[in-house]
Order: sequence, then structure tokens, then C-alpha cells
Amino acid sequence: MAYRVGIVGVGPVGDRILSVLRERNFPIEGDPVVMATRERTEILAGEEVLVREVAEEHFEGLDVVFFAGREGAKGASVQWGQVATDAGAWAIDNGSDFRMSEGYSLIVPEVNMDAVTEENKHICSPNCSTIQMVVAIAPIHRAVGIKRVVVSTYQATSGWGQAAMEEFEQQVQQYAAGEEVQWDPGIFDKPIVFDCLPRIDAFLDTGYTREEMKMVNETRKIMSEPCMAITATTVRVPVVIGHAEAINLELERPLSREEALEILRDPQQSPGVTVIDDPENKKYPTQADCVLDPYKDDVLVGRVRADESVEFGLNMWCVSDNLRKGAATNTVQIAQGLIERGLL
Amino acid sequence: MAYRVGIVGVGPVGDRILSVLRERNFPIEGDPVVMATRERTEILAGEEVLVREVAEEHFEGLDVVFFAGREGAKGASVQWGQVATDAGAWAIDNGSDFRMSEGYSLIVPEVNMDAVTEENKHICSPNCSTIQMVVAIAPIHRAVGIKRVVVSTYQATSGWGQAAMEEFEQQVQQYAAGEEVQWDPGIFDKPIVFDCLPRIDAFLDTGYTREEMKMVNETRKIMSEPCMAITATTVRVPVVIGHAEAINLELERPLSREEALEILRDPQQSPGVTVIDDPENKKYPTQADCVLDPYKDDVLVGRVRADESVEFGLNMWCVSDNLRKGAATNTVQIAQGLIERGLL
Repeated sequence: MAYRVGIVGVGPVGDRILSVLRERNFPIEGDPVVMATRERTEILAGEEVLVREVAEEHFEGLDVVFFAGREGAKGASVQWGQVATDAGAWAIDNGSDFRMSEGYSLIVPEVNMDAVTEENKHICSPNCSTIQMVVAIAPIHRAVGIKRVVVSTYQATSGWGQAAMEEFEQQVQQYAAGEEVQWDPGIFDKPIVFDCLPRIDAFLDTGYTREEMKMVNETRKIMSEPCMAITATTVRVPVVIGHAEAINLELERPLSREEALEILRDPQQSPGVTVIDDPENKKYPTQADCVLDPYKDDVLVGRVRADESVEFGLNMWCVSDNLRKGAATNTVQIAQGLIERGLL
Repeated sequence: MAYRVGIVGVGPVGDRILSVLRERNFPIEGDPVVMATRERTEILAGEEVLVREVAEEHFEGLDVVFFAGREGAKGASVQWGQVATDAGAWAIDNGSDFRMSEGYSLIVPEVNMDAVTEENKHICSPNCSTIQMVVAIAPIHRAVGIKRVVVSTYQATSGWGQAAMEEFEQQVQQYAAGEEVQWDPGIFDKPIVFDCLPRIDAFLDTGYTREEMKMVNETRKIMSEPCMAITATTVRVPVVIGHAEAINLELERPLSREEALEILRDPQQSPGVTVIDDPENKKYPTQADCVLDPYKDDVLVGRVRADESVEFGLNMWCVSDNLRKGAATNTVQIAQGLIERGLL
């Protein structure tokens, strides 16, 4: 059995979606139908790909369409998601437009693949920061219950898209050459070389950013815990790929460092998690690790330690490739989950 | 009245101590006596300075000696602190060796200058991350009481000293030239270009680092709250100068964003704090700000917001120059405080 696959969007996430489909030998019938705002050829996942201008006719006959929209911008799925599902395809959407909408499931396969229903064929993939956090904390929640999450993020420039990656590279070159660093205020508010910018996506009246509230609201929806206490501070750092997160948990029941590590190291209890936590040998995961084999589709967890500042507290650090597990890999895993369940 | 001043250590902190003394017209009698491991001349604060090999005779007659030791290494004050105080001088110590020892006061002038006593002439200046945090949170504690602190840091390479600043620059050049990035495992565990490394100072058996426990223990001592609930995750980021911190507070009494900002903007209630918090105009403080006039001796606070995930919660972000307010400026402010109190 093979499936007719569409990909809408050819930025870094679109590139990774095709890579992950190929790496996993996803059964694609013929060539994937790749669409973007204008017709051209592009190198995607190392292949020369014909890109078509997105149009209704190209959705005809597709079984699954990946929307590779980037964070923050209105995604193509606003205009084309319904077209895809009307054509009979499953839409798997990396954009943020429908994640919190009723009738749209929001899926991290390791956590809530069961929430997919045949009625809701437009499936959303969460925010990159949310995905890695829920993969890391869901096993702890299943084991002992989580009462409250306090998270601070260290997010790569690539989360903003291709232009931000190029901006970063250009700024590094300018800095290295001793030139004044230029920046595009349409991307970040200041040069990201070398500074940490605590604003990702737009500010709300409360002082929080949309990115911070995505971490709160999407986590609650994925974990089916509509009242879980969560607060976030999201920060852009001078790193190209890979998000890191310092996570503080207040648990329902006690959990030692050793017990937490045992849960997180068990692939049955903690799918998608790889633990790198060996303080004696100065081993802990960083963003440089998460882009490499064999880690590039995993959530790396380390710095696990009991937090004595609260009853049943636990600290952890997690890292993941925001373009792969934080986006592309998660969407492909959703499609694989549909196949496993006989839905695709 | 002028004072005979000694400075032990000629790294980035020693350089800044002389700068801050000059900027503040600290009344120095003659030339300051600058000491290090070997005799030479050095440019310090833009001045050509004769550096003497540290020896007992050079402490004779000094009124105040600044120990400019860097974090992590055993500071010169272990060997020479007692020599300084025996010679009748006040020792003001940036090193970490005596901060938690009984009989040594640990001072952030905005918070606990009153803890200085004439009996304890060896005064310690806290860890850079601790200083900026207590300046930012002490006003909130005085106003409504703090029950618990959860802090995640974004710390600059310069916190490790001159060699780490040079290593960073070298790595940027290598990266920009497309070369393989080299690194000295004696400084950081991995290249810091471009990665975030969640280990600062040595690991303890609990999984915490010494840096994290400095933030816990030093904060308690400075704030005279030996049981205050505090937990920290300290992280090195690819930034040269300036530490940032995402601080989550659980308060004793309710405090809105507006009330918190009012406290923090009041120079009487919040000495040393400058608020940059204007989400509408995308204004918030970053490390790039804290090295510039007029901010370079301040703790910049922004991203203030109520945290609904706990009763009476508050989030804030603070930034400060780790070499100045996080080290040099704090030591000079201590000396100025001694003069004001008639102790020097």
C-alpha cells in the first residue's frame, strides 16, 4: 500500500518533512506533490523537486497533505486546509492557526495519538517548544501526576524560519569581520548575535507572548488536562537549530532523581525520550547534540534533579531539534500513526 | 580624605574595578597598588599600570583591598585575605571561597549593607547571578514577601574569565571561516559557538551544580532568609558579557503586574533597578543593553507579569553586566558604603 502525499511549504520544515518521509521509507505513491506560493524547482531533502503553485486541482486524489507552515505567520492551511480535507485527504498541519480550535485534534504521537478521530481529518502538530516539553513530561505525569510546570526556554533562530537562519549567519559574518551588525526588525527586535531576546511571537495585554501561551494552552489540550498549572518564559538565543528548556515540575507524589531517571530511561514508559544524564562524566544534552544521529528525532533529557524548594519538586532540562521532532518528524509520526490505526 | 587602595587580580573584573573606581571618583591616595601572580605592566581601565607580584609588603598601609578573583577558581583571597586584614585594610572579595563562611559578611549594598560590621573586615561580594537576582527581587520581598523562587539563567562566557572571552571570539572566527570549531575542555565542556551549556562550575552529588547552589545559599544569606525556597538552573549561553535570568516568584500576598512595576520603578523601594517593560513597543531588557550607558551598573528588569499558575505568582526577567554590577561595581559600591558609614 502506498499513499499520495502532498507538502505545502518549502522552508526548513518542508525540507525536513521530505527528509523524514524518505528516511522512514514512508510509502509514497509516485512523487510527492510539493506546493508553494509560486511554481519553481527547489532542492528539498537533497532532491530536485518541482514546486507547483498551490491550487485546488493539485489536492485532488491526495491521501495526506503536510502543511509546513512556520510559527507566527498565518499558515497556508487557513486557505487550503479545508480544500485538502474536502478532497478526501488527511491534513497534517504544522501551523498554529487551528491548534486550539474545537474540532481539530492536536497531536504528539507519544502522548495522545488516541485523540485522533476520523471526523477530524485536519490534525494539528503543536508548537515546537510544546512538543518537546510534553514528550519529556508526559511520562512523569502518567507515573506520579504533575501539579504545576514552570518552564524557561532557550529557542533557536530557525524557529522563525529560513530568513532568520540566514539573518543569523549574516550577523555572525559581520561580527567576525568587525563590521556593524545589521538586522531586519521584521524578524527579531535586535541583533541576535550575541544576545538573548525574551520575545517570541506577539505580546498580549497580560505581558505574556503568544509563544508562552501556546506552551500553556497546547500542553493542556494535548495532555487532556484543561486546568494544569503552567507558566512559561520563552527566549530566543543565538543558536541556529535546537530548542532547550529548563523545566521545573511540582508533582502530586514524591519522585527522586533516580526514580525519575528510571521512568525516563524506560522506552515503554517514555517513548521518544533519550536520557543523557551523567554528571560524574559531565554529560548532559545540549542543542549541538539534538541535530545529530542518533538523536535528531528524539527529545533529549538531562539535568534531572529533585527540587527541595517545594513538596515533590523536580527539575529537568530537555533539548530537541525544533525543525524535526519540533515540527517535521512530529507530522510524519502522525501520518505513520494514522497508517498503524488503519485510518490512512 | 583619600584611601590607599589595592587590587589583586588583573583579569576582566580587575579591569572593571579600576574603571568603576575612576568613574566614581573614588578617593584614591596616590596610585592603586595592583598585584597579580607576577610583576609586569598591564593596561587596566585604559591606564598603563605597574603590576607587582603579590607579596605581604605590598599590603602594608593599604585601607581597602579589592580581590578580583574569578568564579570557580580558588581566589587569591584564600592566601592573601588575612594578610590584607592583618595589615589593617578592609578586604572586599569577589571570589567565592568565603562567601558562606561564618564571620564573613556577604553584601549587596542595595539589599544588606547593614550586615557589615567592623569585626568582619573581610567582606564578600556574591556570585554574579546572585547579585542581580537579589537586587531585582529584594524590593518585591520587602513589599509582599517571597515564598519561593524558581530561576533559570542565561549566563555570558565572560563569567568564566578572560580565557573564556577569548575562546568565544576564536570560535566565532572559526565558525565564520567555515573551519572546525576548536575548544579547550578546561573551560567549557563543548564549543559554546553556538550552543547553550547547562553546567556552570562543578556538579554535586545531587545533580545540581555549585553555581546553582550559590544562587540558593548566597541569596538566603544576603536576604537573611535562611529557609527561603529557591531552586535554580544555570546555563552558559553564546553571549560575551551580560547575564539574563527568568525568575518565577511565589509571593506571600497578591501583586499585580502594575503593582510590581510600580514598586520596581520607585528608586526608593528598588535601588539599582531600572525597568524596561513596554510590551506595546516591544521594549524589554537584553544583555546587549546592560553593557551600555546609562545601564551598565544597573539591574534591568522587564517582562513582569502575573503568574496565574500559582496563588500570588509573578514572572520577571532581569539582565545585568556580570563583570560590573555582577562583580566590580558591587565591590566598589561596598567600599563606598563603608565610607558613608564612617567605617573606611
